[in-house]
Amino acid sequence: MITRKQQKAAQKQAAEMIRQAGINISDGEADSIEVVDFGLSNLAKEGVQVLTLVQTERISVKVLAMLPNQTEPEHWHPPVDGDPGKEETIRVIAGTVYFYVAGEDTFKDGFIVEGKDDCYTMRTEIVMNPCDQLTLDPGEKHWFQAREGGAVMYSFSTIARDVLDQFTDPDIVRITKVVES
Amino acid sequence: MITRKQQKAAQKQAAEMIRQAGINISDGEADSIEVVDFGLSNLAKEGVQVLTLVQTERISVKVLAMLPNQTEPEHWHPPVDGDPGKEETIRVIAGTVYFYVAGEDTFKDGFIVEGKDDCYTMRTEIVMNPCDQLTLDPGEKHWFQAREGGAVMYSFSTIARDVLDQFTDPDIVRITKVVES
Repeated sequence: MITRKQQKAAQKQAAEMIRQAGINISDGEADSIEVVDFGLSNLAKEGVQVLTLVQTERISVKVLAMLPNQTEPEHWHPPVDGDPGKEETIRVIAGTVYFYVAGEDTFKDGFIVEGKDDCYTMRTEIVMNPCDQLTLDPGEKHWFQAREGGAVMYSFSTIARDVLDQFTDPDIVRITKVVES
Repeated sequence: MITRKQQKAAQKQAAEMIRQAGINISDGEADSIEVVDFGLSNLAKEGVQVLTLVQTERISVKVLAMLPNQTEPEHWHPPVDGDPGKEETIRVIAGTVYFYVAGEDTFKDGFIVEGKDDCYTMRTEIVMNPCDQLTLDPGEKHWFQAREGGAVMYSFSTIARDVLDQFTDPDIVRITKVVES
């Protein structure tokens, strides 16, 4: 749960970061930025801001803005009906992104949200800077984090069905509830 | 056919335009820009410069740079095997793009390449500026043009199989031949 005031402030900050990163967006697009707290009511620590530029039955293009020290919780994109699941390419536009996937534990420069060791189980660290990109196969568990400067990245993918994403943290709900404060 | 010198000059100009548009690309990416003359040997008039950022078996992301007054010939993306054909969303980043699709003749601000009326048959004009975007269904015929300032745009699509694109102009060959001059 976030308040309307929190939502508006995060939208504004994300729009500024996106524009600062050189991505030209309209005012209407800025107003459509989705502020996601994953139902954890702790936006500053666990959350993401999402601007959807393209959403068809076949592909999706989103700009993700991570506030300073914000972490997107570990999740994966499961198969749906005849579809093998979302394939996603992340391209970093601004800032440094600490990205975690399956494999050997090389965890070094990121941090685990306090008390949540069990919710962040992927520990192969990939440090990504502007122009770096990686492609996630459907079903690959991953999470990522920004540090002090925040980060802006593109997500290019096959059709996105966000509400069907699966999360390691059992407390997560994908729909963010906004309350008028 | 283009000369190596023409290719390098167009690559350089395209990379500058792309960066000027706020899109951060690496030097390796700049060097990978494809200069396409469609086999017409008239790059300044009919051609396009293409930087492929993502190319998987499911999606494709390209940056298209149009030199001043350059026209991309009329074409469409046919069905291939079990695939209905490429679905493509164009988003303009810099400059103005004159885009032509099927429908009523509203041709007004663009121009037809001299002597090529039969090769540009779509005449519904859509003038696109930065942040404007449109989605083309598979099979939809289209062509587009930049004017004095050139233009930079993204193409977000399902899997691209460029060599299977079909063109109205029978003289077109999709593979550009580069000769050492």
